[in-house]
Amino acid sequence: MKKSIGHAPNRDAPDTAEGRRSFLKQGAALVTGAASAGLAQGVNAQALAGQPWERVYGAGFTGYGQPSRFEQPIARHVGRPYGDLAPGSGAALAPIESLEGIITPSGLHNIRSHSGTPDIDPTQHRLLLHGLVARPLVFSMEALRRYPMTTRTHFVECSGNSSRALAPQPAQVPAGAMHGNIACSEWTGVPLHMLLEEAGLLPQAKWLLAEGADSAHMSRSIPVEKVLDDALVALYQNGERLRPEQGYPVRLLLPGWEGNMSVKWLRRLKATEGPTHTKDETSKYTDPLSDGRSLQFTFEMGVKSVITKPSSTMVLPRAGFYEISGIAWSGAGRIRRVEVSTDGGASWAEAALIGEERPKSLVRFRLPWEWTGRAAVLQSRATDEKGRVQPARKVWLAQFAPDMRYHNNSIVSWAVGADGNVKNVYV
Amino acid sequence: MKKSIGHAPNRDAPDTAEGRRSFLKQGAALVTGAASAGLAQGVNAQALAGQPWERVYGAGFTGYGQPSRFEQPIARHVGRPYGDLAPGSGAALAPIESLEGIITPSGLHNIRSHSGTPDIDPTQHRLLLHGLVARPLVFSMEALRRYPMTTRTHFVECSGNSSRALAPQPAQVPAGAMHGNIACSEWTGVPLHMLLEEAGLLPQAKWLLAEGADSAHMSRSIPVEKVLDDALVALYQNGERLRPEQGYPVRLLLPGWEGNMSVKWLRRLKATEGPTHTKDETSKYTDPLSDGRSLQFTFEMGVKSVITKPSSTMVLPRAGFYEISGIAWSGAGRIRRVEVSTDGGASWAEAALIGEERPKSLVRFRLPWEWTGRAAVLQSRATDEKGRVQPARKVWLAQFAPDMRYHNNSIVSWAVGADGNVKNVYV
Repeated sequence: MKKSIGHAPNRDAPDTAEGRRSFLKQGAALVTGAASAGLAQGVNAQALAGQPWERVYGAGFTGYGQPSRFEQPIARHVGRPYGDLAPGSGAALAPIESLEGIITPSGLHNIRSHSGTPDIDPTQHRLLLHGLVARPLVFSMEALRRYPMTTRTHFVECSGNSSRALAPQPAQVPAGAMHGNIACSEWTGVPLHMLLEEAGLLPQAKWLLAEGADSAHMSRSIPVEKVLDDALVALYQNGERLRPEQGYPVRLLLPGWEGNMSVKWLRRLKATEGPTHTKDETSKYTDPLSDGRSLQFTFEMGVKSVITKPSSTMVLPRAGFYEISGIAWSGAGRIRRVEVSTDGGASWAEAALIGEERPKSLVRFRLPWEWTGRAAVLQSRATDEKGRVQPARKVWLAQFAPDMRYHNNSIVSWAVGADGNVKNVYV
Repeated sequence: MKKSIGHAPNRDAPDTAEGRRSFLKQGAALVTGAASAGLAQGVNAQALAGQPWERVYGAGFTGYGQPSRFEQPIARHVGRPYGDLAPGSGAALAPIESLEGIITPSGLHNIRSHSGTPDIDPTQHRLLLHGLVARPLVFSMEALRRYPMTTRTHFVECSGNSSRALAPQPAQVPAGAMHGNIACSEWTGVPLHMLLEEAGLLPQAKWLLAEGADSAHMSRSIPVEKVLDDALVALYQNGERLRPEQGYPVRLLLPGWEGNMSVKWLRRLKATEGPTHTKDETSKYTDPLSDGRSLQFTFEMGVKSVITKPSSTMVLPRAGFYEISGIAWSGAGRIRRVEVSTDGGASWAEAALIGEERPKSLVRFRLPWEWTGRAAVLQSRATDEKGRVQPARKVWLAQFAPDMRYHNNSIVSWAVGADGNVKNVYV
């Protein structure tokens, strides 16, 4: 299997001689030589004759566009553990198996909500900044929008992402239904340090309580160092105002940290001496270890990657050329390298990266692959700029108690059968 | 006015002492000193009491999200010059006055269509590559999606953008209704040179005819050099499959060139010795000069910028701090610098830039501004990495015949009245 993995010469799609040969064999309906004349002509005549939609005047303009009706099946993977009793409690995961590039379209951004999505009137909503500050402040959304803003591309990952991959048996579901509690957007907002400077943070203030305006009042404690570093009070997502499910009209954004700390529907920031120990950081979002202790305040998301194409539940129709592609990220900064194995980790090849210049952002990796038609196990392994390497599944599992459900950043394995079926496996 | 323009020290939102002072004065409802105790308490009590949406369980999950109902007024500016006779002929411009950052949400991407949006079944659509090639090829969408892909962020600007700003009198409409025939997306697709290599482009092939599957069969001739440089056969836009109005299921993307050359609903590429001289590059999209001649094949879009906040039809409620923000771009490569004037071009200050590392992409510029309450004229002037500078309106006008409607990249002026009203003016 080793020789079947090519090396990507540059950031663009790989263009090796091996790659080109495989396209010539597999990539398209290819018309060559004398025998082709008739077929080529037939092909031309068919294509030039035109399709029904070329013979009718098309649809008029829309004020706000939507995906093609042929793409409607692509939607978030909704998980509602309490069913109709609490239809907005749970998670809706991004269908990463159907997405490309780095930006997640806002309509498919992952959602984790504890009590549904509130319907907030932005003219009535306020953000209160109080506690250990010289001057308590209250901000209308109109006032916030007059502050200087900045724009950055960052991922948001729920710390429970990939918990489904901790089930006793590997689930045979699309990649996004297990690993899609992550998305990446271009966020625009006001650097939070600016508001704190205006309020006059007192020296004894070391933490900030952030509270949402949902009926669960989701609340987390945040060290002031993080706030002064790169926290944003985000108002825009991918160019437009935040979507309701991502915190409209205003959310906190703590790049690279547990998603639920980036409190949505932000209504209150309170400067405190110590952490507040809210329900959302004691009964939930703490990490049970294998030695019986638990870790609290494990803020930073680990270095991680997952192959999205091909991935679980897909079928490779025939042997030949495929591009292996996926996403990688790290809460610690930039992704430095993603390696791909097609033999279950026995050998690795380096993938080409897109977007690795941005810290705490998704990176897209790509590697050409000639599938011979024999069984294969695909894996990806990310390394970040701090030198942290995505751990093997067994190494990760050994650290934690069996009921650990957070921060699973272990290597994901997809088995390709000789029949082309791609399955989720534990390796 | 000169001293009112601050300098941005870094890529983040400007944080000068002057800026901070102005926030302290203007940015929020500020509670200080002894007199504030009652008000601060009132403020706290109100904010902590909570709003109606904090007392009810929120909405359930959606498979595909939408903007808040409070944002529904934000939509494309639709221009239909033939009215109901041809409801899909014309343009729908991006509401750049309401957008932030660099990425345009796909639902608000600008549209220029000659015969509406075709409703294309991707399983039936084919792309034909023929003409002066060794091996004519026909690609199904499934086949195209198996090729190696790449991801890049590029703007698409209609060459007729800003033609409305050539009217005898300055229109008093939002910025997007004049200058919004531009948008910027993260595009993913197959480098076109890869398909040409597979087809075996013959040496005498110097041009490529690109034809769309709309009922107008929009067609343009493209020099082979551009195709081999950076042309993409784009399948994905901002992470998901192309939207119908942007060419679903496949479009050409020619970064930095006239938008209509990035042929949507791409059905045919034909390699030819010379240009085909289609209706869309003879009767349209040619540039009449002041000396009576016309320019054909003016592919590259010029260096350009426009201030989006504040902009035409907006009102500044009171004197004080404002951030001047806008977008800049160049078809020739990266933006190197954007300067902003608040005195109609008498003096200029350099703005902070976001995204300037990407060629042929939008850049966001920002500059803090203390509005004294006196009349002001706001302008922005972009310079690209080739050293090209956005021209003054009079300089641009002098080159062309009065009926020229394309490639207007001249400097845009917004007048702020003493009453805070922002108007479109010709300076």
